[in-house]
Amino acid sequence: IVNLSSCFLQGILERLDAGEIVIGDGGFVFALEKRGYVKAGPWTPEATVEHPEAVRQLHREFLRAGSNVLQTFTFYASEDKLENRGNYVAEKISCQKVNEAACDIAREVANEGDALVAGGVSQTPSYLSCKDKTEVKAAFRKQLEVFMKKNVDFLIAEYFEHVEEAVWAVEVLKESGKPVAATMCIGPEGDMHGVSPGQCAVQLVKAGASIAGVNCHFDPETSLETVKLMKEGLQAAKLKAHLMCQPLAFHTPDCGKQGFIDLPEFPFGLEPRIVTRWDIQKYARKAYDLGIRFIGGCCGFEPYHIRAIAEELAPERGFLPEASEKHGSWGNNLSMHTKPWVRARARKEYWENLKPASGRPYCPSMSKPDGWGVTKGARELMQQKEATTEQQLKELFQKQKI
Amino acid sequence: IVNLSSCFLQGILERLDAGEIVIGDGGFVFALEKRGYVKAGPWTPEATVEHPEAVRQLHREFLRAGSNVLQTFTFYASEDKLENRGNYVAEKISCQKVNEAACDIAREVANEGDALVAGGVSQTPSYLSCKDKTEVKAAFRKQLEVFMKKNVDFLIAEYFEHVEEAVWAVEVLKESGKPVAATMCIGPEGDMHGVSPGQCAVQLVKAGASIAGVNCHFDPETSLETVKLMKEGLQAAKLKAHLMCQPLAFHTPDCGKQGFIDLPEFPFGLEPRIVTRWDIQKYARKAYDLGIRFIGGCCGFEPYHIRAIAEELAPERGFLPEASEKHGSWGNNLSMHTKPWVRARARKEYWENLKPASGRPYCPSMSKPDGWGVTKGARELMQQKEATTEQQLKELFQKQKI
Amino acid sequence: IVNLSSCFLQGILERLDAGEIVIGDGGFVFALEKRGYVKAGPWTPEATVEHPEAVRQLHREFLRAGSNVLQTFTFYASEDKLENRGNYVAEKISCQKVNEAACDIAREVANEGDALVAGGVSQTPSYLSCKDKTEVKAAFRKQLEVFMKKNVDFLIAEYFEHVEEAVWAVEVLKESGKPVAATMCIGPEGDMHGVSPGQCAVQLVKAGASIAGVNCHFDPETSLETVKLMKEGLQAAKLKAHLMCQPLAFHTPDCGKQGFIDLPEFPFGLEPRIVTRWDIQKYARKAYDLGIRFIGGCCGFEPYHIRAIAEELAPERGFLPEASEKHGSWGNNLSMHTKPWVRARARKEYWENLKPASGRPYCPSMSKPDGWGVTKGARELMQQKEATTEQQLKELFQKQKI
Amino acid sequence: IVNLSSCFLQGILERLDAGEIVIGDGGFVFALEKRGYVKAGPWTPEATVEHPEAVRQLHREFLRAGSNVLQTFTFYASEDKLENRGNYVAEKISCQKVNEAACDIAREVANEGDALVAGGVSQTPSYLSCKDKTEVKAAFRKQLEVFMKKNVDFLIAEYFEHVEEAVWAVEVLKESGKPVAATMCIGPEGDMHGVSPGQCAVQLVKAGASIAGVNCHFDPETSLETVKLMKEGLQAAKLKAHLMCQPLAFHTPDCGKQGFIDLPEFPFGLEPRIVTRWDIQKYARKAYDLGIRFIGGCCGFEPYHIRAIAEELAPERGFLPEASEKHGSWGNNLSMHTKPWVRARARKEYWENLKPASGRPYCPSMSKPDGWGVTKGARELMQQKEATTEQQLKELFQKQKI
Repeated sequence: IVNLSSCFLQGILERLDAGEIVIGDGGFVFALEKRGYVKAGPWTPEATVEHPEAVRQLHREFLRAGSNVLQTFTFYASEDKLENRGNYVAEKISCQKVNEAACDIAREVANEGDALVAGGVSQTPSYLSCKDKTEVKAAFRKQLEVFMKKNVDFLIAEYFEHVEEAVWAVEVLKESGKPVAATMCIGPEGDMHGVSPGQCAVQLVKAGASIAGVNCHFDPETSLETVKLMKEGLQAAKLKAHLMCQPLAFHTPDCGKQGFIDLPEFPFGLEPRIVTRWDIQKYARKAYDLGIRFIGGCCGFEPYHIRAIAEELAPERGFLPEASEKHGSWGNNLSMHTKPWVRARARKEYWENLKPASGRPYCPSMSKPDGWGVTKGARELMQQKEATTEQQLKELFQKQKI
Repeated sequence: IVNLSSCFLQGILERLDAGEIVIGDGGFVFALEKRGYVKAGPWTPEATVEHPEAVRQLHREFLRAGSNVLQTFTFYASEDKLENRGNYVAEKISCQKVNEAACDIAREVANEGDALVAGGVSQTPSYLSCKDKTEVKAAFRKQLEVFMKKNVDFLIAEYFEHVEEAVWAVEVLKESGKPVAATMCIGPEGDMHGVSPGQCAVQLVKAGASIAGVNCHFDPETSLETVKLMKEGLQAAKLKAHLMCQPLAFHTPDCGKQGFIDLPEFPFGLEPRIVTRWDIQKYARKAYDLGIRFIGGCCGFEPYHIRAIAEELAPERGFLPEASEKHGSWGNNLSMHTKPWVRARARKEYWENLKPASGRPYCPSMSKPDGWGVTKGARELMQQKEATTEQQLKELFQKQKI
Repeated sequence: IVNLSSCFLQGILERLDAGEIVIGDGGFVFALEKRGYVKAGPWTPEATVEHPEAVRQLHREFLRAGSNVLQTFTFYASEDKLENRGNYVAEKISCQKVNEAACDIAREVANEGDALVAGGVSQTPSYLSCKDKTEVKAAFRKQLEVFMKKNVDFLIAEYFEHVEEAVWAVEVLKESGKPVAATMCIGPEGDMHGVSPGQCAVQLVKAGASIAGVNCHFDPETSLETVKLMKEGLQAAKLKAHLMCQPLAFHTPDCGKQGFIDLPEFPFGLEPRIVTRWDIQKYARKAYDLGIRFIGGCCGFEPYHIRAIAEELAPERGFLPEASEKHGSWGNNLSMHTKPWVRARARKEYWENLKPASGRPYCPSMSKPDGWGVTKGARELMQQKEATTEQQLKELFQKQKI
Repeated sequence: IVNLSSCFLQGILERLDAGEIVIGDGGFVFALEKRGYVKAGPWTPEATVEHPEAVRQLHREFLRAGSNVLQTFTFYASEDKLENRGNYVAEKISCQKVNEAACDIAREVANEGDALVAGGVSQTPSYLSCKDKTEVKAAFRKQLEVFMKKNVDFLIAEYFEHVEEAVWAVEVLKESGKPVAATMCIGPEGDMHGVSPGQCAVQLVKAGASIAGVNCHFDPETSLETVKLMKEGLQAAKLKAHLMCQPLAFHTPDCGKQGFIDLPEFPFGLEPRIVTRWDIQKYARKAYDLGIRFIGGCCGFEPYHIRAIAEELAPERGFLPEASEKHGSWGNNLSMHTKPWVRARARKEYWENLKPASGRPYCPSMSKPDGWGVTKGARELMQQKEATTEQQLKELFQKQKI
């Protein structure tokens, strides 16, 4: 029998302060790309308007899998980003409409269970093309207005490569008075300007974030390493904050500083890297042991990965998610299989120790990240944001004939 | 601009006879297991009653991806099979209800586009436990009654390991007067009694199937090899039939005769074997070149895999599927990426030649199928169906202490 | 304590007829290439004259490792082959000199222990460039004259891709009255004209060979499969002969019909394929179980590989080779190691089950053999021997711009 | 045409001070283990007395391959170490005899070409079992007496895991007045007491070493990283010394702090890790670019690996080694091959870019080092040398039931 949590719906901070484990959701752009509703490359969320039933269904699956937080599907939904879609979305859909629809859908599904709605903002093209603080903040504020109107439960600033922009986002979100979580898409080497994870966390918390951590760009193992550094940074600075981790569901031991974007397999050849549910159970346990209490996922996380978090931590939480109706712990649903050797797989030791084969004998196990062919000068230019318009980059690229 | 086919809705045989390419759909039990609605092990489709919205959404995604045939989600929905679920489905849901709901949902979505509805039956526990022909046929007939009442467009007998049972299924389905397709889950070594693929095809066509081929159990490459043998068998027997292929979306070069069930990774560690969209484009091209005109997928096939078939064969068909709105041919949607080295991936040669890394340096690339530890005697007993009750197998298994 | 065989020196057939296991030696051209005395490409044995001490030392190591047969280092030492060396061997060394020195060195070392000397001939450029039977036989006869003068114990015709040429070689060698062994460098698909292994064996034995089998081109596993087919062919033809196997010490599961030459790693990147001593113990056991009694190795076999054969079959033979003074059975020499976890490796189960890692995460586990880029027409021409002169091949190659 | 160096024979420091590249030799214990003359586990060099011809031949091959330094085969030839052999070497061979024979053989071969003889000492069981400085130094002094009597050209203290013992060795060797080189078997993490590579180098040079670096335990890439840290340490301390590198010829990216000993493949399953000649050419180039001028190898290095160093640096040195008579630069000896696709391999780009396959699809590419199962307490005890007698370790080990 599956037990559902019956606790009264409380805010994110009340839950975390009480020591509860909060389970996040998974990656919308990747999941909906595979389902046919998001375009890789732009990765924008106009599906909230074009195909609300698809977005709703995915939210519902995550809720069923155990998510306590439904993030509005507003990734890359700032006005400046959405404008870039012009070239392929036939009818113009306004930034406001996309964000409003996202809030409505998330709330509708959250009401079906024990979940909070979090309004999310992410890094902007304005920052990358060196617009000033006022302009960048204006972009976040525009999204925030929708979140306030739709009365989301709290806010998440996520997927920032530069702590400077993340801090600006937190500052804007804090204007709302709602709790703010902030996660960066960085690894142990820190942000794109070389700020260490510990220092990033300190800046985010000082800016007003009550929850800090990482999301995207790296696999669970690497991400936990980064959050550990953030934890140490906060401790050293005697700051208090809850920790959060929402990594990729892809194995990326071979990533460079900029994460999985630079892997040759990104984004259409990542399949052999997809983590299993058992990998996720190990991740959930490690995250818990590290003191992280907001545990979710990002690109690649499907509903069954979120369920794996909920199942691993069921002993601590005292209940299983609804979707565990259709899942046996550690494969025990195989115990009635007709083949004895398949029945022999119905146990924890089996799946815990399995080293799954790729079925790809002609492929290697690791890749060299791309981008190293670009001369150091060009990389530096790009990182200094002196050459980040499309045209400038194109010229640089051609000049260097990668 | 995406062009939609505007041909009048014709029957499956009219389409195939006219030389059209018919695209099938993907694997429901695996996709819905990951979404939280199907239990691995039993793999039964009670979700049609319990969670129709989830089944509907998956149909819709396949339709959008280019499927011309929506198969009713009636896999393992024979009465004898559904009864096994007793132990975990709280409320009893009748076989008839499951099958009816499956037909209704498929028809509802099919009406949204250019698709046919196919009622499907699959192998039964009755056959495996040595019930006689009358009893086994009765199970198929019970499902067929629903299909007739709901007026599906044609019928598919799929996932048969023994040609004898498949022939019985075809015979029952032919009673309806509707076109019948029949696919077996076998590889080049043939069925479980050692009947060769060519001979299997001959028997299926003689029994009344207008379309013959394989589904499930093996990867695209192996499955094409098997269909090729079927084609040769039919040619040698001077029989005419359309060819059909619906393989796994997992690489399984290391499979034994019984397919991916025996791989140690089945069913919860198959992730590193998942095929890419580019693998599927190669498969679609090869299938087409081999003369196969009913091209689809089985377990592991997600909507984006079906879209890959439709995109590869767009030149022959003259149109793209709806979901290609959100996809660029061969990665060309990356051509606007901010990083020059990611833009460099926006071309066919790149993805065609990529050997994707697994990110798993501690894992091998191939596995030894399980089951070989079982003594030859036990295997033979099982294959002779003298020991296929749960209890007998359990005893055998314990006696042999695998 | 190491026991040395004290049996009286008998001929090869007396030994085999008595049911003794005869251990061959390893691969001279590969071992001496790594030691700096043989040039890859030509692979000719002028080292017998240029650096006799190096050849002598290698013979001695094989003898010490357990070889009962020392093959004269006369691989590719036919006159027509040696002439090709002209371009890099400064001083002209006559064919006769090379062969005589080879015999002298082998005999000198054989006299140090319980070993026979076998004079060896191998395939000739004359045959490949379509010289007639008389001319090809003359080349073998020239080498045979030296072997007779030096009174070798028996003769081996080895490394033939075409059974026709192998039969000619056997016919010449039989003129001597000495026992003849014949091995082809073929796999289960048979010789380059498509003659099956079974048929090849039949022809060799009918031509006078008392021992038949394979050498080179394929790994132990594949080679055993081929010898099994030969055995079945001989049985079907009611012919009697001893079986012999001298495979590569490289894993080549990905080879095509022409063996390891076509692998992209040949000959300077084969290191990751080198078999372990434990692989060899498995090979020796399997060979023995298959009824093969002349068990040795070819390219890649180093002295410790030969010792592994002798150690595996020590229970059957009743003694260990001299070099086992410096080796513990199944790693038991690690039992005194200072690190407990290294001591834990001092047992058979450990090494038997180890799946050794490559340390090469950026490399695949299998390769596609080369040569398939060559158009079918060109391959057929080459196989028909209509275009086997250097010039013709070069032209063909250029025309096809591989 | 092969040019031989005609420079007058000068001392090691004159050569290095003049900017010459000095090429070391390869690994004797591993090479002679495979040839049947050294026992893995004890790894002692009694072969100098038992089988001088085998030792002589290996020296000769390295000389021919380009070695400018022949190290006496006196690894683990201290009296305390040799005594451990008692249990398997039938006749007692004195420490003095082993060392004297080693010197005689090395000198004999060195006189055949342009090579220096270096007397070598390595870490002692006395140190590991906590004998005091006087006792440990006495062991080194005993070997040094032989080296002085036999008048070696210079001295090498190599294979030290603890810088303390290495410093003691250097102090003893300096008593001779001869130049001293010192290498440790450490990686970037430093020695077993946690002393960093930079600090180790500083201590070695302060103790009197004119040449400092690393040997054994790690692959070329890791070893170069370590020497780089040593170089930086010396620069920071404003000390001058020549740099030296003699790494493994095995790929070990997965090693822990204690190097390849802890890999599950050590020492009988390392084959798939063996580096190619092309890997060595890259290593030689990198070493040169890093300013290292004493470049050689350790375990796994065969003569052809040393030749690869000499060939890569031939442009800088102006000559090729003798063994290049039998080798074409970058595979050009394949240019006359009969198969066009093999001829196509006769070029640098081909071998430089080849990712060689392992032929082992059932094996992983990396391993987890052993020893981590030992509880932290036990490891610490061992590292504190409080439990390093055989008996104590055995007890610890059993208590912890690894």
